[in-house]
Amino acid sequence: MTNGIRYGEAPSDGAGLVVGVDIGGTNSVVGAVDETGRLRAQAHFPTRARESAELFVPRLAQVISGLCEELAPHIQLRGIGIASPAASTREGIVDNPANFQWGKVDLAGMVGRYFDVPVMIMNDSDAAVLGETRYGAARGMSNVLLVTLGTGLGAGIVADGKLLEGAHGAAGEIGHIIVSPGGRECTCGRRGCAETYISATGVCRTVFELLAGSVAPTPLRGVSYDALTAELVASLALQGDRCAAEAFERTGHALGLLLANVVAEFDPEAIVLCGGLIHAGELLAAPAQTSFAQHVLGRYKGKVRLLLSTLNDGEAAILGASSFARDRLHEVVVR
Amino acid sequence: MTNGIRYGEAPSDGAGLVVGVDIGGTNSVVGAVDETGRLRAQAHFPTRARESAELFVPRLAQVISGLCEELAPHIQLRGIGIASPAASTREGIVDNPANFQWGKVDLAGMVGRYFDVPVMIMNDSDAAVLGETRYGAARGMSNVLLVTLGTGLGAGIVADGKLLEGAHGAAGEIGHIIVSPGGRECTCGRRGCAETYISATGVCRTVFELLAGSVAPTPLRGVSYDALTAELVASLALQGDRCAAEAFERTGHALGLLLANVVAEFDPEAIVLCGGLIHAGELLAAPAQTSFAQHVLGRYKGKVRLLLSTLNDGEAAILGASSFARDRLHEVVVR
Repeated sequence: MTNGIRYGEAPSDGAGLVVGVDIGGTNSVVGAVDETGRLRAQAHFPTRARESAELFVPRLAQVISGLCEELAPHIQLRGIGIASPAASTREGIVDNPANFQWGKVDLAGMVGRYFDVPVMIMNDSDAAVLGETRYGAARGMSNVLLVTLGTGLGAGIVADGKLLEGAHGAAGEIGHIIVSPGGRECTCGRRGCAETYISATGVCRTVFELLAGSVAPTPLRGVSYDALTAELVASLALQGDRCAAEAFERTGHALGLLLANVVAEFDPEAIVLCGGLIHAGELLAAPAQTSFAQHVLGRYKGKVRLLLSTLNDGEAAILGASSFARDRLHEVVVR
Repeated sequence: MTNGIRYGEAPSDGAGLVVGVDIGGTNSVVGAVDETGRLRAQAHFPTRARESAELFVPRLAQVISGLCEELAPHIQLRGIGIASPAASTREGIVDNPANFQWGKVDLAGMVGRYFDVPVMIMNDSDAAVLGETRYGAARGMSNVLLVTLGTGLGAGIVADGKLLEGAHGAAGEIGHIIVSPGGRECTCGRRGCAETYISATGVCRTVFELLAGSVAPTPLRGVSYDALTAELVASLALQGDRCAAEAFERTGHALGLLLANVVAEFDPEAIVLCGGLIHAGELLAAPAQTSFAQHVLGRYKGKVRLLLSTLNDGEAAILGASSFARDRLHEVVVR
C-alpha cells in the first residue's frame, strides 16, 4: 500500500532522500537527508508512548509523506532508517521498549506497508553514536561512547571503529545497570536502575525525594508529580532555587560516577553526552565533571574526553539511522 | 644476553615451542605450548607481587629456561607470550598493576634480555578470553565475557569475534567498577571497587565484616587477617560453618548482580568464570546464579550462559598468550 507517490523512482546514481526517524519517549523527529548528509527538512510530533504501535505508525507515515511531498518532485525517497528504543536490526523488531506500551512489534514491516522503499530499524543509541562519529562531536574517532539523557538513559558504543551490537543486538543498555539495589522502581520491572536517577525523569523523582526530606520553601512544592518536567526544574535552578539546583547536583554526581564505571569497561577516547537533559548545561555538566574526575580509575585519568553533542535534538539519531539505511540500500535491492 | 641455549634456531615450518606465562597476584604459571596448541610442560612459582619487577624477571627467566631445557633438543623455543595484569600490548609495558609493587615497567624488554626470541605481553584477562574462545568453554563463540576471580577481579572481552581492547588497551577493568561508593578501600586508591567484594580477597574481607557484626562462634575467630585465605573459608563452609557459608553467599550475590549489570552493557552469549575462587564451586556459583537471574534485565533472560572454565588454573591465559604470540611471530620477524 503506497499513498499515491512513487517514492521508489529515484535516479540510479545513489542520489535521493533517505528519511531518518528518531522515536523518543516524548517526541519523535523525522528528517529527510540527502546524499551529501544534509538534513533538507525536518518535522516533530508527539510519540504518545502509552498508546499502541498500531496507533503510532499511521501518524508517523503521515509525517514522512508530508515531508516528502514538500521536497518532491526535486528529490525522491529512496529508503527509511528508523531509530527506536529496544530495536534489533538483526531481528527486525522492536521488543518492549521500557517506557512504551508497544509490546513486541515488527516496526519495519508496519512502516513498510506505507512506502515502496526499504525500511530499516536500529537501536536509537546506536543510530546516535553513528551520527556523532560521522557528523558530530566525535567525528573521526574509533572508540566512542554516546550517552543519551532523555526520558530514559541509553548508550551507543563504537569500539575499534565498529558499532558494538552484542550477541543479540542489545549492547549498551547502561540505563538498566542497577546502581542502587532495592532503590527506585523502574519501568523495566526491577529496582535501582541507573535511568531512574540519571534522566529527565530521574531529575523529577529526585526533586520529590528532596521535597519529602526537607521543609525549605520552594515553588516546586506547588507542582504535581505529573506536571513536573526537568525543564521546569532547570529553569528554577537557574533562578537560584536551592532544591532545583540540588536535584541537578545529585543527578550530575550520579552521572559522573556511572561514566567513570563505564570507562573502566570500554576504555573509550571520548564520551559524548546528548539528549534533552543536556540543555541544563552547567547545572548538570559541572557536577558530572567533578564526580567523573573524582571516581575515574587512575589509568584513565586525562585520557577520556567528556563532550556535549554539537548536533540538535534527535539530529544525531536521524543522521545515523539515515546513513545506516543508505549504506544498506544496495544490499536490499540486490537480495 | 642469552643463557647459552640458542632458542631461536627453530625449524622454518612454524613448529617449535611458544611459551605462555600467566602472572597472577599470588602464583605465576609458565607453560610450553607446541604448534598444535598442546601444553607440553608446565611450572608454577610464587609471584611475590610485593617485590620489584627487577627481582621477579630473573626468577621467571630461570623457570622458562628450565622448561625449555626439559624439552630440548626435540623441540625449540620460538617466542614468549606473557599475560600480566595491567599490561598494554600496544605500549609494550605493564603499568602499575593494582596488587603489585612494580610501578611502570617494560616487562617484555626485561624478559627479552634473557632470550633470543620475540617476547610479547598482553593483559591477563585478554589472554584468558582468547584461550577460552580458542580452546576452552567458549570455543567458537563470538561474544564472550571472561571473568577472572582471583586475588583481584578482571575481565577479558571478545565482541563480534574480536578482542575488545579499548582506545588505550585498557578495556574490561570490571574489578574497578565502583559498586559501593564510599565502601571498602581498594589497592587502586579509591573506595568501593567491585574487586574489594568479589575476589578471593573480597571473601576474606567479608568474613571479617561478619565476625565484627555477630557474636556467633566460628573457628574463623581464631584466624588472623594475614593468615586467612579464601580456600580456608571454603573448606570451613563445606564443613557447615555458617559464617564461612554466609561470606560466600554474599560474594556470590554481589557477583550475580555485577554480571547482570555487565550483560546490559556487552550483551554476550556467554560469561565464563575462571580463577582460583571458582574452586569454591556451588558455594559461589549457586548464589551467583540466583542473583544473576534475579537482577538481569528481561530482554537478556535465558539468552546468556554462565559457564565455569573447563581449563586448569592459568591454562586459559597461558594458551591465549602463547597463541597470541605465535600469531605474531611472522610479523615480528618481518619487521
